[in-house]
This record gives sequence, structure tokens and C-alpha cells, in this order.
Amino acid sequence: MPELRKDPVTGRWVIIATERAKRPNQYLKIEEERKGGFCPFCPGNESHTPPEVLSYRPRETAPNTEGWWVRVVPNKFPALQPDGELKRSGEGIYDRMTGIGQHEVLIESPSHENTYADFDERQIEEILWAFRDRFVELRKDRRMRYIMIFKNWGREAGASIEHPHSQIIALPVVPKRVIEELQGASRYYDFHDRCVFCDIISQELRDNRRTIVSNDTFVSFIPFAPRFPFETWILPKEHTPFFSDIQKNEVVDLARIMKQTFSLLKKALNDPPYNFVIHTTPFESTGDIHSYHWHIEIMPKLTKVAGFEWGTGFYINPTPPEEAAEFLRRLAEKEISGEAPTQQVVTASPVS
Amino acid sequence: MPELRKDPVTGRWVIIATERAKRPNQYLKIEEERKGGFCPFCPGNESHTPPEVLSYRPRETAPNTEGWWVRVVPNKFPALQPDGELKRSGEGIYDRMTGIGQHEVLIESPSHENTYADFDERQIEEILWAFRDRFVELRKDRRMRYIMIFKNWGREAGASIEHPHSQIIALPVVPKRVIEELQGASRYYDFHDRCVFCDIISQELRDNRRTIVSNDTFVSFIPFAPRFPFETWILPKEHTPFFSDIQKNEVVDLARIMKQTFSLLKKALNDPPYNFVIHTTPFESTGDIHSYHWHIEIMPKLTKVAGFEWGTGFYINPTPPEEAAEFLRRLAEKEISGEAPTQQVVTASPVS
Repeated sequence: MPELRKDPVTGRWVIIATERAKRPNQYLKIEEERKGGFCPFCPGNESHTPPEVLSYRPRETAPNTEGWWVRVVPNKFPALQPDGELKRSGEGIYDRMTGIGQHEVLIESPSHENTYADFDERQIEEILWAFRDRFVELRKDRRMRYIMIFKNWGREAGASIEHPHSQIIALPVVPKRVIEELQGASRYYDFHDRCVFCDIISQELRDNRRTIVSNDTFVSFIPFAPRFPFETWILPKEHTPFFSDIQKNEVVDLARIMKQTFSLLKKALNDPPYNFVIHTTPFESTGDIHSYHWHIEIMPKLTKVAGFEWGTGFYINPTPPEEAAEFLRRLAEKEISGEAPTQQVVTASPVS
Repeated sequence: MPELRKDPVTGRWVIIATERAKRPNQYLKIEEERKGGFCPFCPGNESHTPPEVLSYRPRETAPNTEGWWVRVVPNKFPALQPDGELKRSGEGIYDRMTGIGQHEVLIESPSHENTYADFDERQIEEILWAFRDRFVELRKDRRMRYIMIFKNWGREAGASIEHPHSQIIALPVVPKRVIEELQGASRYYDFHDRCVFCDIISQELRDNRRTIVSNDTFVSFIPFAPRFPFETWILPKEHTPFFSDIQKNEVVDLARIMKQTFSLLKKALNDPPYNFVIHTTPFESTGDIHSYHWHIEIMPKLTKVAGFEWGTGFYINPTPPEEAAEFLRRLAEKEISGEAPTQQVVTASPVS
């Protein structure tokens, strides 16, 4: 059984994941390269994953056989375990909790090689519906407090399996980073009586220096204070606290803006590794529904997080967001006019 | 001039570093591999760095020539600029500040290849004295609020130059991560009237399952809730808020425990990439001197930080700290008895 442990200084929780345990001297070995090898997520290999908890497939096909276009299975090496009681205990000054939770893998396509930039919009819509279906289902577990949907793309971003997939994790506590955002948004709301994200959207749309793409219900832009070069946020234009309340027409718009945004990032940065996270209001929150606004954060991994960032929580970003956004917008225009983007040469490299 | 920008939701500051600027399409190029090439930090190449601000060298040698054993220079591509006024301004709902600060590089040895595991203890003592000298000097700048000393070792940990070096950065604001630690420590102090770090030390020494090495004035151990496998902390046993108040006998003990701890980590994990950060009380703090305790955090980079960590602020650590500490202690014993450590085979790999 994995264990949740709390840092006594900062209150940060850590999962000591015994199920994915590595013995200390296993780090001496270089991790096996899976490229070109056997893929447990490809059609025909359904028996190599735990039995599916959801799939979108033709009526006439049986579960755990070929034919699906989106498939959700429990993670074979889960960070948290679904069975058991949520028990809290102390050990001197320290606090721990049993590692109860759900950890699922959403296989985003039968095709092994594609990502959001390559999928057609219909496929992205199906993925979004599967996110929502599992979200609603996992929320029924009374022991859970928060559900996080995320995707790691590329080895540098932490993906260990190449086949396009995302992950859904249900947690027995609301994570620290989410609480920080909720508290920040709530402080802003107390002062202004307005949602900070709604204000960000209206300033970005008015200013138009950091926006990338916009449609009827969604906008994508580089935030004013991005941690990483080309960090990109996608927000519903209308104030909506919960991702799971997404409307049918919004799913269509979101799939379109995701396809456009990821295509531009792929082209601009040569298919960069990235992390994609859906941030939503905890489902038991009542106080936060006016102040918090669900959104997506995309973090390309082009720079390394180093000692300075770990020590301070500050980030050093070598690319001004206005330049990054302009570059992507120009690329979108050239795309339409058929011109090739120009190349430049690396000049300075920082000492770090 | 670099710019500090504040995220309007979380209050997190970001440095938009124009001096180390990368144009958007520079990320398309693979970064040049420096190994084996020209090294600006090696003796004889002193003219390739900005003029030194401190060096330990024989009296008869001139500044910026060979002969030094520790040398501090301004960073050629600083994240922050020393000259100018600290100006704050708004832009709609956003906040910004001029990027005033100091960013220095401490070249830790004339030798190109070594690290703390290889240096003799005397060399580490000299590095520690240079940290302290620069700390005391930079603190005199009234615009500054915090000084962070850190080291990135290995490309995976963000080092772009191979020659052993660390960095000293003076900041015009106390960083978020430091404030979080101070607040956590202060909450504990308010409740217990004791320093949380002093309590951690006494529990670790009594329990003895996570300790690595201990001497008269310092102890190194794996914390109860480590974010990363083999994350290691080194603390002065006696309550001391400021790193810069370190006593002469403590410098000797700290150099010894650093040499021992880094040697064990190097041997156990095949010279892993790591980040090393000194955490100390901000020098203008008066309220925190009873509750905060300076210390060192060492974070080997064996796992990748991915979407889950970015979204939650939670960490998944696949190696229980008790096992990591036992492994290191056994290695220390075998070192003495002359036995070779045994090897094991990788079994499970997590999906992430």
C-alpha cells in the first residue's frame, strides 16, 4: 500500500509509491528504451493492460478487444491504490495517510504515433468526453477530494510510454498547488468582487499581445508571467468553475482550439515535450465557485528546472511571452499564406 | 534590463530574462555540447569571464590570472542586473518590477572534472568561506532582500558548463518558496514554542532510520517526506537561523559531512545529476530567528518532474527514504570493510 507523507515544515504531501517502487541501486541502470519495442497500448494488445473501465467502441465489439477509439484502463503501476480505508496516523512530529486513490490511463487513440496536433478534431472531442465521463464517475467515491487530469508528452516531460495517453488521478486531499490557486483567486475576488481569470481574459483580449487563438467560447494565450518559454493557457471565455460542466458546443470549440494551439507549438518548437494539466475547482467547494475558473495549462519543456527554481519557487524564463505569442501568430498566418518560417542561430547561452 | 513579473493568481514571481534571451525559433536547434571544448572557468582562461569579485590566491599573484583555488565572477549572462533603480509598475491587473539583483558564479576549483565527492575537505572549507564572504558582501546592498546559494551538477540538473561551479544570487524580494517555509516553521513555533527543524533533528537522531552521517555539529539524513529519491538534508545540530553566522569549527565539520555525504551519493547512484541549495533566514527577518533554522537540501535528479507534480505540487517518490538511507549507510560500512556493493535488476517501470 502506498503511503502519503506530509512535510512538517511546508505541509507538502508526498506519495511514497511502493507499487512503483525502485530499490535504491536500480538507479544505477539506464532505463530501457521502449521505442520500437512492444506497446501494451496498441490495438490487439488489450490483454496486456488491466481490464478497461471505459471504452468508446462499436456496439458489436467486446470489451478488451480491438475496435475502440478511446480506452481507459487502471494504471498497471498506480501511484495510489483504490482499495482500503483512508487512515491517518502520526509518528512523532510526522503525519502520514494511507495512499488511497484512483490512477487511470486514458489511451487517446489506436494509432501509436500521433498527438493532439495530429488528431482530427472529432478524436479530440472524444478524448474530452472520456475525460468528463471518468471525472463524473470517479467523483462518486466519497473518500476523494480532487481529480487531476494531465498528460506527459515526450521523455523529457516524464512520459515513459510513447503511445499517446493521458492520466486521471483521484486524490484523498486537495493538493497544495490547487489550494494556492484557489486562495489567490479568492483574495482577488474579495477585493474586486470579480473572478481574476475573467479579468485576465478581458485584459488579454483587449491587449491582444499574448493571445494565440480565440473562438466563440475559448481563448488560448501565453500568460503575462509564464514560468516556461511558450507556456500556454486555454480558458473558457465564460465564467465556469467546473471542467465537468462543459457544454456540448464548448467541447467542439475546445477540440478546435486545442488542435490549432498544439499544431502551432509542434511546428514552432519541433514537437516539444510538454505537460498538459486541467485545473478545476474541487467538487466539494462551494466558496470558490465565483472566484475560480477552470482552465488548461500547457508547459513545453524547453529549459531545465534547476537549483534556483527549486530553492526560490521563482522561475527564469528566457523568452518574453509577447515574443512567443507573436511568433506563433505569425506562424499561423504563414500557414495560411503557405510561406516557410525563417530560422535564426543560437547566440547566448546562460551559465547555470 | 530583465523584468520581474507577478502571476496575478498565485503571486508567483517570474524573471523574464532579456540578457539570456532566446528568440522563439532558437529552441529548434539542439544546444551545443560543450564537453571537451573550450572552458572559460579553467586556469589560464581568466580573461574570458567578467573580472573577479573575489578570489583566494597566493599574495604574489595578480587578480584575473592563474594561481587561485576559488574564484568568484559576475555571471556573464545574469538573470538579474546590478545597476539601476528598483521600480514597481502596473499594467492593468498585472504587476511588474525592474529586474535588479546580483548574479555571481563561484568557480569551486581550478580542476575541471571534480565535485564535492572528489575535493579534499580543505577545498570544501575554502568554498564555504567564499560562500560566506560573498553572502556578507552582497547583503550590504540595501535594495536586496534575500540571497540564495545553489549548485547545479550535471546537464540533467540544469548545468550548462561542466567545470565545477555554484551560483550566488541576490534578489529584491523574498521568494515565495522561502516565505512558505518561514510561515510553516512559524506556525509550528507558535503552537509548540519550539523550532520545527530542531524537533526534526532530535527525532531523526533518536529514530536513526533515515540518518546518513552525523558529527559534532552537523547531521545528514533523508527527510521523512522527500520529494525525490535520495533527497538529502544537512542541518547544523544547534539552532542557527543564519548560514552566515557559521562558526569556524562548524565549517570544518560541514566540509567533512559534505565530503562524506556526496561521496556516498556519487558511489550509490553513479555520479547523479543534482541540485544543492542553501536555505537560510532572510537577513531582515527578526520574527523568524527563533523558528527558522538554516540548512542544505540536496536533490538528486533521478526521476522526471511531470504533469502530476506541476499540477498538484504533490510529488511521487518511488524510493522509501528509510531504504535509501539504509542503502547509503551500508555502503559506508562496506567502504570501511572493503566489500563491493551488490547489484539488482530493474523490475517494474511506472506508466507516466
